[in-house]
Amino acid sequence: MSRSAATSVPLHPLLAERWSPRSFDPEHQVDEQQLAAILEAARWAPSAGNRQPWGFLVGRRGDATHKAIFESLREANQTWAGKASLLVAAVADERGPDGGRNGYAAYDTGLAVAQLTLQAHALGLHAHQMAGFDHERLLAALDAPAEGLLPLTVTAIGSLAHADLLPEQLRLRETAARERRPLTGNAYAGSWGRPLDLG
Amino acid sequence: MSRSAATSVPLHPLLAERWSPRSFDPEHQVDEQQLAAILEAARWAPSAGNRQPWGFLVGRRGDATHKAIFESLREANQTWAGKASLLVAAVADERGPDGGRNGYAAYDTGLAVAQLTLQAHALGLHAHQMAGFDHERLLAALDAPAEGLLPLTVTAIGSLAHADLLPEQLRLRETAARERRPLTGNAYAGSWGRPLDLG
Repeated sequence: MSRSAATSVPLHPLLAERWSPRSFDPEHQVDEQQLAAILEAARWAPSAGNRQPWGFLVGRRGDATHKAIFESLREANQTWAGKASLLVAAVADERGPDGGRNGYAAYDTGLAVAQLTLQAHALGLHAHQMAGFDHERLLAALDAPAEGLLPLTVTAIGSLAHADLLPEQLRLRETAARERRPLTGNAYAGSWGRPLDLG
Repeated sequence: MSRSAATSVPLHPLLAERWSPRSFDPEHQVDEQQLAAILEAARWAPSAGNRQPWGFLVGRRGDATHKAIFESLREANQTWAGKASLLVAAVADERGPDGGRNGYAAYDTGLAVAQLTLQAHALGLHAHQMAGFDHERLLAALDAPAEGLLPLTVTAIGSLAHADLLPEQLRLRETAARERRPLTGNAYAGSWGRPLDLG
């Protein structure tokens, strides 16, 4: 199953073919080499001052970290995400080098997760980021300091399975067309909100 | 010139070969098709609730937006970034749908800029994000509302030129090895800060 976007101009296949499924093969396992590559992709993301202010908590299905991350998920996400081979929680470390706040920590963590996600797709896997989880519960379960850390997403990574194994409501979402605002709804020139003229 | 990272495991070339130069060809122009593809890549980034909370102000060298963005840059960035074919300011719109704050706006904007950057590389171009610019000055020059918008980066995009056109100090930085913390410096399992065992 593929679910390419109706892009208005051709994109690199890695970007055009990325999408966020809910149907993961509950038997599939990510091997060490694949896991290392996924994390390595995040590692080489750019960041403000090269501070690399992201932390990843990595759970492999069957281990205690996967369980702790899974239990922090909202119920709607628990209906499908437990089958994923990996659950990776991305946490921004907002503690700046000078005792201040690093205002780029969340942004830079987004950059790193984008690279992680695309490397997963390059390996033939799929990834789905979730914002719906209990941040405090996750931090507590993983003995993380409560101050200065900003949990952001949990990414489910695994091998795509048939959507017909999903409950009806999720299956319909799985096959719906991907939607975005038009290109010039977010791209401006001259002044904020004035659509860019693309000729 | 290439400046591949010494990755510990093989990455997809688009990720392995991405780096942030300071040497741009001052004659090169990005055509409309390329610009559309770069923005389209950002458009298809995932975001929390599919809110797509990013805005891009796009300046093409020679136009008023490029000039306004350039003038907001810190002096150190002005020594090289003006030669870039494009200067794209990424601004997160933190205004939530319910009058509240969208706490994912910066993170999601990072995801979108990562995709934009990788599409630029897929087109044979290079991209360099900068955090060093005057946020208020940029917003004012572009008639943007002061409330709810969070300027994050300016990305210089263009065609790579020879680094020997750069001032000595920048040229040395241009050819230095890329550095990151070890993989397990940011990847944990079991508890926060406990390095992931990769076998």
